[in-house]
Amino acid sequence: MASIDKKSDLIVGVDFGGTKILSGIFNHGLELAGTLKISTKAQRSTEEVIDRIARCVRDAVDECDLTFKQVKAVGIGAPGAVDTTEGVVINGPNLGWQNVQLKKELEKRLEVPVFLDNDCNACTLGVHEVELGGQSRDLVGVFLGTGIGAGLIFNGKMYSGFNRTAGEIGHMIIRAGGAADKDNPGETFEDLASRTAIFRRIKQAVKDGKKTILTETLGADLDDLRSGDLRKAVRKGDKLTQAIVEEAAVYAGIGLANVINLLNPEVIVVGGGLIEALENVMFDLIEKNARKFALPGVAKGIKIIPSKLGDKAGIYGAAVLARRGLKAG
Amino acid sequence: MASIDKKSDLIVGVDFGGTKILSGIFNHGLELAGTLKISTKAQRSTEEVIDRIARCVRDAVDECDLTFKQVKAVGIGAPGAVDTTEGVVINGPNLGWQNVQLKKELEKRLEVPVFLDNDCNACTLGVHEVELGGQSRDLVGVFLGTGIGAGLIFNGKMYSGFNRTAGEIGHMIIRAGGAADKDNPGETFEDLASRTAIFRRIKQAVKDGKKTILTETLGADLDDLRSGDLRKAVRKGDKLTQAIVEEAAVYAGIGLANVINLLNPEVIVVGGGLIEALENVMFDLIEKNARKFALPGVAKGIKIIPSKLGDKAGIYGAAVLARRGLKAG
Repeated sequence: MASIDKKSDLIVGVDFGGTKILSGIFNHGLELAGTLKISTKAQRSTEEVIDRIARCVRDAVDECDLTFKQVKAVGIGAPGAVDTTEGVVINGPNLGWQNVQLKKELEKRLEVPVFLDNDCNACTLGVHEVELGGQSRDLVGVFLGTGIGAGLIFNGKMYSGFNRTAGEIGHMIIRAGGAADKDNPGETFEDLASRTAIFRRIKQAVKDGKKTILTETLGADLDDLRSGDLRKAVRKGDKLTQAIVEEAAVYAGIGLANVINLLNPEVIVVGGGLIEALENVMFDLIEKNARKFALPGVAKGIKIIPSKLGDKAGIYGAAVLARRGLKAG
Repeated sequence: MASIDKKSDLIVGVDFGGTKILSGIFNHGLELAGTLKISTKAQRSTEEVIDRIARCVRDAVDECDLTFKQVKAVGIGAPGAVDTTEGVVINGPNLGWQNVQLKKELEKRLEVPVFLDNDCNACTLGVHEVELGGQSRDLVGVFLGTGIGAGLIFNGKMYSGFNRTAGEIGHMIIRAGGAADKDNPGETFEDLASRTAIFRRIKQAVKDGKKTILTETLGADLDDLRSGDLRKAVRKGDKLTQAIVEEAAVYAGIGLANVINLLNPEVIVVGGGLIEALENVMFDLIEKNARKFALPGVAKGIKIIPSKLGDKAGIYGAAVLARRGLKAG
């Protein structure tokens, strides 16, 4: 973390998710002074959740021994379809939100300009600007975590589509059901390669009597299983965990091959909590399979890289958003 | 066909495929005077194939009782990765071509400016400009025929990606194999929903002893099967053909749902020879399944429409390409 003095202008980047709110305090050069995380409590009223975001922003500034007067803008990435111009969360299924004036409500509470985008767009913007220096023209950011989402940059600009929901790559059907059963579309990218999918398969394997060292520390129900536990288990040579994580990586490779065939982007960045915890096990397999299952020749020269920002991509991207917003207007 | 007088400036649009070359003669208002089709003979030398394209252009003009002196520009859509600026076919697997200077070679033979793009891009351009008046900002054209290809328009402009191969939607894996067999990626969009897939399934069903009226006219080996035969069989109430065509339509719907989830385009146009022949049987099912398998809400307001240009989308798009090229100077 950078040490930022009490006279610098500050930008706050907020990664607002269905389960947690993470605020990062940056200077104008996008050096990170510190972060603060609180839970979202999405089951509470919209007003209360927005109060919590405002509190998380203020407390993060205080945590860094800085003062809120230094803050010039706040950027925020929210889960769902977002109208960036009006600053409205059009539809946030994980939050149960529809048409929430998040920008306006936060500006009322914080009295600084607030800039809003979709969470995966914010992550992609962070990776594009901070990790890649804004250089690549066409970039797809794929984020593997509890779910799987993507952000798309075409011709150097964020692309969000007609209903501003572009990037819902997690719902791409990769293993269709039998055509006889027309009501069963089969399994999506998320069903096959997300953390949720890995956890589900491990739990099922344990129920089926398979052995894993995960049960030694977590018990037979594996209720408290986290990405970090998978990393530790693999490091200790746990064959079941390794096999299930590798299977998810193969499917993730197929998902990326589909992106390469359809969009042929200059760069694919793979990030998210799962990659942060398991890059060593997953990344090479993802890349290998993405290239193997892409049409011959089309992946040539395309960069497939892991994001180093991990869980911080969202706050970095939100800070970029705020900095751009200030500049534009 | 429009009647065009002997003094009008003409534009020729060429749809250059692996099996046939189709030339269309247009006036500047994109009225079509007539077409001429010859076979490609892709097995012959590159020089000979380019000679054939030039001949097809000249003969099409003559077929319309017009003179070649009226021709101001030629547009051409070619199968494969294309460098539009240099006018080079970088890689054309169906032709066995690599780095062929098609623009330069045709200009040498025809002595008029030639403008080149990928065939699916040309089809998409034709649909966008001629059918939709150039109005939609983000459009995906999906063309179902022997194979399946797509053209992408983002922010009003053709998008072709890093290696200029974007749109290879036919190779998107939709029904992945079991993960146990990591070398088997499973079945692609093309494997499940192209004309080739339908023909293969019908032939297999006949081998398995299923009954169809198709064998009455075509014999048990069904060697000369064409899209038109499928249309006629369905019209006569042939249950096997109907079921297999409908199965392909369901998979095509899944392919489109994947596009809606990932790209959320304003418009998806479905075209190609299969749709031209079987729109009545396939289109409603494709649209229904695309909307059903898209994430709730994200397909709202998105137009999914059949192309009326059918097999002529390519020549219309190539003519648009030539007209734009002339305008740009």
